[in-house]
Amino acid sequence: MLHASPRDPFNVVIEKPLSASEGVIEGRPTLLFGTNNYLGMSQSTPAREKAQAVARSMGVGTTGSRIANGTFSLHAQLEQRLAKLFGRKHAMVFSTGYQANLGTISALVNKDDILFLDADCHASIYDGAKLSGARVIRFRHNDPADLEKRLKRSAHESGARLVVIEGIYSMTGNVAPVKRFAEVCKANGAALMVDEAHSFGVLGENGRGAAELDGCEGEVDFIVGTFSKSLGTVGGYCVTDHDDIDLMRLVSRPYMFTASLPPEIVAATLATIDDVEAKPELRAQLRANAAQLHGGLRAAGLKTGEHPSPVVAVTLDDIPQALAFWNGLLEAGVYVNLSLPPATPDNFPLLRCSVSAAHTPAQIEKAIAAFAQVGKAVGAIKA
Amino acid sequence: MLHASPRDPFNVVIEKPLSASEGVIEGRPTLLFGTNNYLGMSQSTPAREKAQAVARSMGVGTTGSRIANGTFSLHAQLEQRLAKLFGRKHAMVFSTGYQANLGTISALVNKDDILFLDADCHASIYDGAKLSGARVIRFRHNDPADLEKRLKRSAHESGARLVVIEGIYSMTGNVAPVKRFAEVCKANGAALMVDEAHSFGVLGENGRGAAELDGCEGEVDFIVGTFSKSLGTVGGYCVTDHDDIDLMRLVSRPYMFTASLPPEIVAATLATIDDVEAKPELRAQLRANAAQLHGGLRAAGLKTGEHPSPVVAVTLDDIPQALAFWNGLLEAGVYVNLSLPPATPDNFPLLRCSVSAAHTPAQIEKAIAAFAQVGKAVGAIKA
Repeated sequence: MLHASPRDPFNVVIEKPLSASEGVIEGRPTLLFGTNNYLGMSQSTPAREKAQAVARSMGVGTTGSRIANGTFSLHAQLEQRLAKLFGRKHAMVFSTGYQANLGTISALVNKDDILFLDADCHASIYDGAKLSGARVIRFRHNDPADLEKRLKRSAHESGARLVVIEGIYSMTGNVAPVKRFAEVCKANGAALMVDEAHSFGVLGENGRGAAELDGCEGEVDFIVGTFSKSLGTVGGYCVTDHDDIDLMRLVSRPYMFTASLPPEIVAATLATIDDVEAKPELRAQLRANAAQLHGGLRAAGLKTGEHPSPVVAVTLDDIPQALAFWNGLLEAGVYVNLSLPPATPDNFPLLRCSVSAAHTPAQIEKAIAAFAQVGKAVGAIKA
Repeated sequence: MLHASPRDPFNVVIEKPLSASEGVIEGRPTLLFGTNNYLGMSQSTPAREKAQAVARSMGVGTTGSRIANGTFSLHAQLEQRLAKLFGRKHAMVFSTGYQANLGTISALVNKDDILFLDADCHASIYDGAKLSGARVIRFRHNDPADLEKRLKRSAHESGARLVVIEGIYSMTGNVAPVKRFAEVCKANGAALMVDEAHSFGVLGENGRGAAELDGCEGEVDFIVGTFSKSLGTVGGYCVTDHDDIDLMRLVSRPYMFTASLPPEIVAATLATIDDVEAKPELRAQLRANAAQLHGGLRAAGLKTGEHPSPVVAVTLDDIPQALAFWNGLLEAGVYVNLSLPPATPDNFPLLRCSVSAAHTPAQIEKAIAAFAQVGKAVGAIKA
């Protein structure tokens, strides 16, 4: 099936990034509407300068684990900065966001415990669950009532109970009703972990994510996040008020048995955190851009989620149509992500579009026009 | 027990690296004899320059997975470079070495298959096994005969059979007899994967690792490695001649569901690969340094492995002695790694020392003198 497509949608090469919103693909400048660069921070000037200064002064790596020779002062500084930012007592930094989920979940629960995972949780959460050995109970996506039913059904069982949700779901842009989840967790004796990978820097008055937006940060036990989305670098973290987190440093295998982040990445991340904090107007711009893209795609007759979000998923009828649509968009100079069943939530193929504060209104108009034109050509928009 | 120690050996902060062999710890310049910086590449001048140039021209991250927007030309170049270096058809780059093992093993085998793992394999190999769901059979460390016994015992079972060993074991410095393992695998219909994390850049005429040293690269199916040791940066890879590796890009979750390496890290890695290739004298120096450290510690009356290796493990009697020894060394200006049971191979605590081509003979002499002095003080060296 994939070979029916003139290009492999999972093997696109960006020959050169031109800015946070444009890159060269197949020799041509192409608008990037399929990244996680929500605030354009991969191109932050202060971060690039910091990375250069630290590569010069400290080198390009640590060659060691955080529990051996891989903790430089910079790593400790970054953890203090994250703890302060979230108003939490503790923060732990991991070498990737994937490892942050693996490392946190596998350290918090074991085979005697039960994990309750939203059906649409990211692969890294499911992989962390597998690594932990805990029993996994899936509940219906974004459905606190369904979670409550399942928590009550297992109320007589022993072992810890940890619920994991995401702030914004990466494929659909759906926002979790965190407060309602927190209430259900509290009423049923379960701990709550929220992965704010796609919501940090995006939601909430200070950009701390879906829990801040919902005014319930104090009711969330563990927040996990990543540096590779709104913060533009790479790495992950967990913040919490639980004092046992220092124990986690000695039991979390994905934390211990990996080289720590290179100093220039840590320095760049400290710089993008400052940059994001100093520019709340980026979040306002992101919201405006999200509304423009979402509104435009709906007005063009495409099937999207109901509410605007920096991630807009366009649902299509079948795989050949999705492949043709994705190809047509790339030919029209617009790159988006293609997601095929069974990896998609409802088993329909979808085009995952994401918007950045770095997009100009004219770029978004151009993308909408391309969607409208290609959508008609492939039959996704009925005349 | 840990609190009997004046310092936490797993929470050491390097305030500032001074060179590949020295860093500031507790305000004082300290000799680093507990890293994986075998060739000093974390401080490679060409790599630092490349990292700076690319942070300037391309930014500090990709914000995307390799199968979405996270493949820049640089990632493809690095894969071609690795394939060429190993003389293999295919190479895949992962965001960490930990994820290279998780991603390769979990993609190659599943619940219907059997994994045969050396008892001393790294945590990332055991975590990859867990993620794969395959049945795990451990064989005695570095013992091809024991492996063969277990392979024969399960000869009637269906499913794929994958054997995983390491080139050099990270804690003990032991070198695997790769050729004998390859023969056993071939005779018993099992595939062989060798993790050359600690042996790449160290063993073999061209530094390709234990398989090259043993003259049997052609008999190894999959080689996995990391950039965070002799190459001084961060990330991991798998090289092979098997053509299905391109399928692996669409089934390996630790490859797909993580942000790709930032461009400046990829550029730095390309530069350290060139640097290592251009300077075979670094490997000669490393071997001389390993012999000096190993010989000196044995002459001082300490219990080490039999053969010189860039990793020298000093085995101690009990945990209090190990803690006192480790602390005394740090006070004498020498940092090494402490490893405590049950994480150690024979359930004895050990001081893991590693040597770098960047160490001078005088630095090694100083370290040996500190070992001799502290060893007597804590009773590890009998008068």
